[in-house]
Amino acid sequence: MTSGKLVVFQGPGQAFQLQSAEVRALLPGEVLVKNRYTTLCGSDLHTFCGLRKEVCPTVLGHEIVGEVMAIHPAHSGSDHNGKQLRVGDVVTWSIFSSDPESYYALHDMPQKGDNLFKYGHAKVENVEVFHGGLAEYCILKAHTAILKLPREIPLPIAATLNCAIATVAGALRIAGNLEGKNVLITGMGLLGMTCAAMCKDAGAAWIIAADITEKRLEEAMGFGADETIDLKKDNVKLPAKGIDVVFDMSGSADAMEFGIDSLAIGGSAILIGAVFNTRKLQVDAEKVIRKLLTIKGLHNYNYQDFTYALDFITRNWEKYPFGQVVGKEFSLNEVQEAFEYAVQFKPLRVGIRI
Amino acid sequence: MTSGKLVVFQGPGQAFQLQSAEVRALLPGEVLVKNRYTTLCGSDLHTFCGLRKEVCPTVLGHEIVGEVMAIHPAHSGSDHNGKQLRVGDVVTWSIFSSDPESYYALHDMPQKGDNLFKYGHAKVENVEVFHGGLAEYCILKAHTAILKLPREIPLPIAATLNCAIATVAGALRIAGNLEGKNVLITGMGLLGMTCAAMCKDAGAAWIIAADITEKRLEEAMGFGADETIDLKKDNVKLPAKGIDVVFDMSGSADAMEFGIDSLAIGGSAILIGAVFNTRKLQVDAEKVIRKLLTIKGLHNYNYQDFTYALDFITRNWEKYPFGQVVGKEFSLNEVQEAFEYAVQFKPLRVGIRI
Repeated sequence: MTSGKLVVFQGPGQAFQLQSAEVRALLPGEVLVKNRYTTLCGSDLHTFCGLRKEVCPTVLGHEIVGEVMAIHPAHSGSDHNGKQLRVGDVVTWSIFSSDPESYYALHDMPQKGDNLFKYGHAKVENVEVFHGGLAEYCILKAHTAILKLPREIPLPIAATLNCAIATVAGALRIAGNLEGKNVLITGMGLLGMTCAAMCKDAGAAWIIAADITEKRLEEAMGFGADETIDLKKDNVKLPAKGIDVVFDMSGSADAMEFGIDSLAIGGSAILIGAVFNTRKLQVDAEKVIRKLLTIKGLHNYNYQDFTYALDFITRNWEKYPFGQVVGKEFSLNEVQEAFEYAVQFKPLRVGIRI
Repeated sequence: MTSGKLVVFQGPGQAFQLQSAEVRALLPGEVLVKNRYTTLCGSDLHTFCGLRKEVCPTVLGHEIVGEVMAIHPAHSGSDHNGKQLRVGDVVTWSIFSSDPESYYALHDMPQKGDNLFKYGHAKVENVEVFHGGLAEYCILKAHTAILKLPREIPLPIAATLNCAIATVAGALRIAGNLEGKNVLITGMGLLGMTCAAMCKDAGAAWIIAADITEKRLEEAMGFGADETIDLKKDNVKLPAKGIDVVFDMSGSADAMEFGIDSLAIGGSAILIGAVFNTRKLQVDAEKVIRKLLTIKGLHNYNYQDFTYALDFITRNWEKYPFGQVVGKEFSLNEVQEAFEYAVQFKPLRVGIRI
């Protein structure tokens, strides 16, 4: 029997607990992974601060990269791209698993399929303890999409693939062809930065980054933005260019309304950021109609997005400053400090090297 | 020189004026049509009542069917489907003409193209008087999509093709595949009725019609609805079935919010009705995101929708009670009475036989 460490979150305002537990035997189709690196996602910080409620006690962290330790014989033995999986492979995996035969899974929304399980969002209960990134191990359930990673992608970048990067890939999928389009991105956290780079990669003509932090706007230029807008200034003007697609990564109702107002005829607003309670958006239906606008929301991503994310990062991790995304690294013993640092200094990501 | 009658609208609250004017010579690419039948669209009634402001003086009426009287030699001589146009043909035509080489026209939104001209919405000025349905003639500008009509389609039905029916065709296009889907339609005017029939024709599994008028809900069953919801009752419950697509034809903010709330994961709300000022919609962005919803607006239609509308009506005008849409007919001398009747008794359409 192997045992491993895990960091348990009991609820907002309570200290993280470093515990030790036995790794249970694998069930059919499961894969055991030794976590190597976890980045703290914005939603982990929201849970930490109490802006978002997760079932507790839990092991947070879902942006994870790890190393295959054991594969149950009933597993197909291949990753999601059909590559052979071997012990020792460095992998990431979909943030969720769900029943592949269920309605939403069959309709390209596996993230809403039946028997949904989400890593970094589950209760620590009995022998079910290794299902988050802030632990030494993670047991990957059957029907989890696993992706074998090229060795050259640094772990801190690879860790962000299965949440931030894949979600942005989904945002681009639902936005449609971006070739020659004018794009506005509101909210320049890691999703916004990735979105700028991915839009550039997809042939967007002009990319405008909007945020309320000057430092983030400066960083955005490195990720492919052509122009920036500081939304904190008074009397912020709508972009001079008619916007074909606006991506909101901020979750701010003000930013979303600004984005929708910016749209040219036929434009689309892709909403991603508001996965927490915000004031209702005030939407002018007559404008939506007369301007032939589209507003779409996306939560998480599907398998196509996940593989696109890996393809994008493999081609672009050196071209854009993804290597500078993690502002500071901590160990599994320092998770409390890591969260406090993240909340106070707001780097794009804080990393936990395990 | 031919001369003809026209009914001039001077503004809300002012009596219509029956005038006579000369039909000017055709310019290159134009077609002269003798109007045979015009139906009063909801937007004509809004203009009449002052809910909507049009440039005045004008000739209202844009749901028109007519007979070809003359074709300028520079016209291609074919209708939009490539059929040869001859003097005496019964035709309808797109509500607009626009520059086919302009940006939006090239991007499948000719209704927003440059040099946009809309029949029944233009100013009576100098020799430009025959451009609406409440007149004996209409001059069709170059780049107007003309459709030759099968003789068997009754004029009162044919008249509704180029606005109500074509707009609904556009709504279905942007809704995507409806096969096996649960559909909710809010607002059972002619657009709602047509939408029910068109959704049935497109293979929708279950169609729910919602309105605030019992009579309209009864009529909706004849147009293909499987179930009705009276939105005027207290404590209206959301439909028990998860709705895949809601079409709003009412323009009521309450109805649109009800529709968006009804949507299942992955659902779409298609907004058509609110082509006038309403209170802002209160939209919960978190729900739009977590439920992967889409909200789309459409104003008017494109050429593909127009030809689909004709195809649909050719196949279905006898199958559904389109023959009962016109509640009462008037002559060109009775336009004032026709509008007053329409406002008071609210039939699906009032017809003007010319």
